[in-house]
Amino acid sequence: MNRNLILLMHCPDREGLVATVTTLIRRVHGNIVDLDQHVDAERQVFFMRVEWTPPAGDPNAGESFERLFAEEVAGPCGMTWRLERAGRRARIAVFVSRYGHCLLDVLSRWESGEWAADIPLIVSNHPDMALVAQRHRIRFEHVPVTRDTKEAAEQRQLELLREEEIDVVVLARYMQIVSPRFIDAMPDRIINIHHSFLPAFAGGQPYHAAHARGVKVIGATSHYVTAELDAGPIIAQDVVPVSHKDSVEDMVRKGRDLEKIVLARAVYAHLQHRVLAYDNRTVVF
Amino acid sequence: MNRNLILLMHCPDREGLVATVTTLIRRVHGNIVDLDQHVDAERQVFFMRVEWTPPAGDPNAGESFERLFAEEVAGPCGMTWRLERAGRRARIAVFVSRYGHCLLDVLSRWESGEWAADIPLIVSNHPDMALVAQRHRIRFEHVPVTRDTKEAAEQRQLELLREEEIDVVVLARYMQIVSPRFIDAMPDRIINIHHSFLPAFAGGQPYHAAHARGVKVIGATSHYVTAELDAGPIIAQDVVPVSHKDSVEDMVRKGRDLEKIVLARAVYAHLQHRVLAYDNRTVVF
Amino acid sequence: MNRNLILLMHCPDREGLVATVTTLIRRVHGNIVDLDQHVDAERQVFFMRVEWTPPAGDPNAGESFERLFAEEVAGPCGMTWRLERAGRRARIAVFVSRYGHCLLDVLSRWESGEWAADIPLIVSNHPDMALVAQRHRIRFEHVPVTRDTKEAAEQRQLELLREEEIDVVVLARYMQIVSPRFIDAMPDRIINIHHSFLPAFAGGQPYHAAHARGVKVIGATSHYVTAELDAGPIIAQDVVPVSHKDSVEDMVRKGRDLEKIVLARAVYAHLQHRVLAYDNRTVVF
Amino acid sequence: MNRNLILLMHCPDREGLVATVTTLIRRVHGNIVDLDQHVDAERQVFFMRVEWTPPAGDPNAGESFERLFAEEVAGPCGMTWRLERAGRRARIAVFVSRYGHCLLDVLSRWESGEWAADIPLIVSNHPDMALVAQRHRIRFEHVPVTRDTKEAAEQRQLELLREEEIDVVVLARYMQIVSPRFIDAMPDRIINIHHSFLPAFAGGQPYHAAHARGVKVIGATSHYVTAELDAGPIIAQDVVPVSHKDSVEDMVRKGRDLEKIVLARAVYAHLQHRVLAYDNRTVVF
Repeated sequence: MNRNLILLMHCPDREGLVATVTTLIRRVHGNIVDLDQHVDAERQVFFMRVEWTPPAGDPNAGESFERLFAEEVAGPCGMTWRLERAGRRARIAVFVSRYGHCLLDVLSRWESGEWAADIPLIVSNHPDMALVAQRHRIRFEHVPVTRDTKEAAEQRQLELLREEEIDVVVLARYMQIVSPRFIDAMPDRIINIHHSFLPAFAGGQPYHAAHARGVKVIGATSHYVTAELDAGPIIAQDVVPVSHKDSVEDMVRKGRDLEKIVLARAVYAHLQHRVLAYDNRTVVF
Repeated sequence: MNRNLILLMHCPDREGLVATVTTLIRRVHGNIVDLDQHVDAERQVFFMRVEWTPPAGDPNAGESFERLFAEEVAGPCGMTWRLERAGRRARIAVFVSRYGHCLLDVLSRWESGEWAADIPLIVSNHPDMALVAQRHRIRFEHVPVTRDTKEAAEQRQLELLREEEIDVVVLARYMQIVSPRFIDAMPDRIINIHHSFLPAFAGGQPYHAAHARGVKVIGATSHYVTAELDAGPIIAQDVVPVSHKDSVEDMVRKGRDLEKIVLARAVYAHLQHRVLAYDNRTVVF
Repeated sequence: MNRNLILLMHCPDREGLVATVTTLIRRVHGNIVDLDQHVDAERQVFFMRVEWTPPAGDPNAGESFERLFAEEVAGPCGMTWRLERAGRRARIAVFVSRYGHCLLDVLSRWESGEWAADIPLIVSNHPDMALVAQRHRIRFEHVPVTRDTKEAAEQRQLELLREEEIDVVVLARYMQIVSPRFIDAMPDRIINIHHSFLPAFAGGQPYHAAHARGVKVIGATSHYVTAELDAGPIIAQDVVPVSHKDSVEDMVRKGRDLEKIVLARAVYAHLQHRVLAYDNRTVVF
Repeated sequence: MNRNLILLMHCPDREGLVATVTTLIRRVHGNIVDLDQHVDAERQVFFMRVEWTPPAGDPNAGESFERLFAEEVAGPCGMTWRLERAGRRARIAVFVSRYGHCLLDVLSRWESGEWAADIPLIVSNHPDMALVAQRHRIRFEHVPVTRDTKEAAEQRQLELLREEEIDVVVLARYMQIVSPRFIDAMPDRIINIHHSFLPAFAGGQPYHAAHARGVKVIGATSHYVTAELDAGPIIAQDVVPVSHKDSVEDMVRKGRDLEKIVLARAVYAHLQHRVLAYDNRTVVF
């Protein structure tokens, strides 16, 4: 098992931060295997991700480091931080509507062991994907959502997340707006795929809008969900060329491939604990 | 010399259009070397570009074809069309402000013979690029533009275009909004480069806006200028990946390369008579 | 149902070919919906793909056109040609080894109706994918291949192709070299995906070789299989950037996404009858 | 002026290296502004680039750090390392043959201040670019090279490099093979642009070879020159899509844009002291 510890942090920039943190890791006999830092020069904020192997035979290395770090470093420097365990498998819930391509792609990655994660739950406002879930022996919950039942539906969804101890929610073309209350329960842990290169063509029907505007590239954007629609911190983004020959249907088809890839990149980076959201943007180490 | 003739046309779709046109070309003993057609299924509009070599020894092949075609085909079918001569060198005016990278790139393509075109005129609202023009022995006209003098300035610019018999105006980061009157004098013949993947980040300071939004790709868009700012028919568009490590200055630097390439692609396609603007979009054959 | 007819042809270039063909289509009251032609100027070869809707109510429009065309056009012009029916669903056999990602992606496209094709058969030299096939209710045949049994194995595979009336074989990371005899039975109808940007890194272990060479992009190539290994006509090709940070395992992971997409693009183009192989290269209309 | 110091190093991996180096920088009151490290897990080699601002008012901060570092850290750890000054403008010699596009692009970057570097020298085996050099008031030396005079020519070139105190040689489509003796005089300081995605199409006429093979992407590769032709450590690499429509001439035209961009990326990374060559590959921080 991978015993590595991963520290993600940001704080106001000041002299000696790298030395301070790495010296502490050295003191507890950790062997740094990866370190990446970034300074936002404009805002004078320091970001760092550092991953290390603790000494063998200490099952509580994480807990003791957390105590030490909080007291000696994070507190005095005013850091926002978290410590992750590389060996811990995240638990993913996939939310889906009627389009199956992103869900099927997510499941094929999970099945082939590409992601160190479990997928114990699929939630949908439509029953269409029940068979797919069943085929993979994953719990499927059909939670219909109407204007009137939305609050109750989200209540039910949050219960399901708790029951299944979900760490991250993947909106695999879920096509529903989630409420601030729902988002607050999972801050920076709901990943959406939007089928345009945001901020262009936010909202519904982006391929129709792209076709009408006559663009020569179409895109897809994966981002953390925030209260404002399609405006959360962008994790991954890519485009594919199109031409006048591409009808809206062609764009939808080409876009599907892009959506799958871009969503997977974002989820993978999140699962590797490489994403730090800050000020509605992300640092992806 | 390349004696080829190029017909560009669009009209309401109907049966037999390809056969009608190609049969006429055959009748005048033209040898088709390139034909590309497109049907906009939604609008039921037919587009075609066909290039052929007329028989040797007939210097008026273009004129006679024009007469024949107008009478027998274009009229009855309600076509919008034009006939271009491949061997005719277009005359380009480059409009520039203070940023020289697009101008220098345009000049290096012209100098190396990449474009079958002449550049007899450079116009700028600043004197900075006079030396560059002089170095290439190109007429440079400094036409300052202020809110009050804008109309007179455009009057002067239009005179210059007439004097130099300009076919196409390239706004190589000109940074000025041109008036509808100016645009009407050169419809679908003013090519601009905008430093974002439109429709995202239209208007000023797109790199600043892209940085603030935290996008993971930045783009450039080349389009025909229309009365609405940054909203004309897109000819070419491309993007380059960026990350949290890229400051606004890095984006500007990476974007410059993109602007050069995308503008050049658009101008090249225009010079090859491969672009048909229609309904605020383009068909690029 | 889509009743369109699609003609694919090539022959020595000569005057009037487009007019000749389109006039014949017009004579039989076909309405051309797509026409693309290409002249290989170096070899003086003319290529064309033309798709048209025959008049309603004539179920034998294809057969009568074939007779007419053979006699009046193809014969005299020395054409190599074929006529395809857009409405006919192709029958695909997928050959796979142990890696499931391309197979799963192919199945998800088939399942979502992205391809107008059926997949009645999966063949593998390993039993691993039997469950996947069963889940999709597709016939799975485990045909082990060793050096000694290769001839008999291919004999068996060819029988299966005949039994299931297979039109196209997709080698979805099949990892076995197929013999000239097998290839001859399905000329230009076996599509392989190779995990490098050919001609770089042909043969086995391309990701290891790419890592050792320190390249900054990795690629995937989909091509028709010919007798020479990894040297057949390329249909589609794409790349993804990598850096020193990517281990061989990272390249394998990133490459998988590329393999899926590039293979799917090639199969889609083939199914749309857009690919013409010629002189070990392809014209992809 | 930018007073930052940049340390580039690699050594066998061991515990505590980041802490050791950053603690030393802290001891001399340096403020780290950028740190990137990498471990080649396969070879167990540690790489790091760290940039810091020394305290104001100490003009010898670099020299004192070098002494300290050599004695206390680099020696004991068996490091290969160098210390660079961000504020020092590198001196570039451009070698060119008859194709001017890369040279013109390099000059336009230099002219616009994109690179913190000077270009005091252009060397060519042909006289064609003399005027371009003169226009930019750069010393131009025509050093013809024939099989018989090659040794003397390289002798002359090396003298010119010494005279002009050249730091880095940019082969901007120089089209000549340089000898091991020449390379040894400028190890990891000669940057070439090759017009293919190496290792595919090494050697001469890569666009012809790419066209003959029917590839769907063409590429360009910038690398440090080593004794083996086109086989040195790759710094940057990119590709552009092509199709059957592209003749060799079209590939040459599209390739030119790629060559300019890829060469510029490599030179920029080198000038920023971001490239570490190791074991015939590069780490580009």
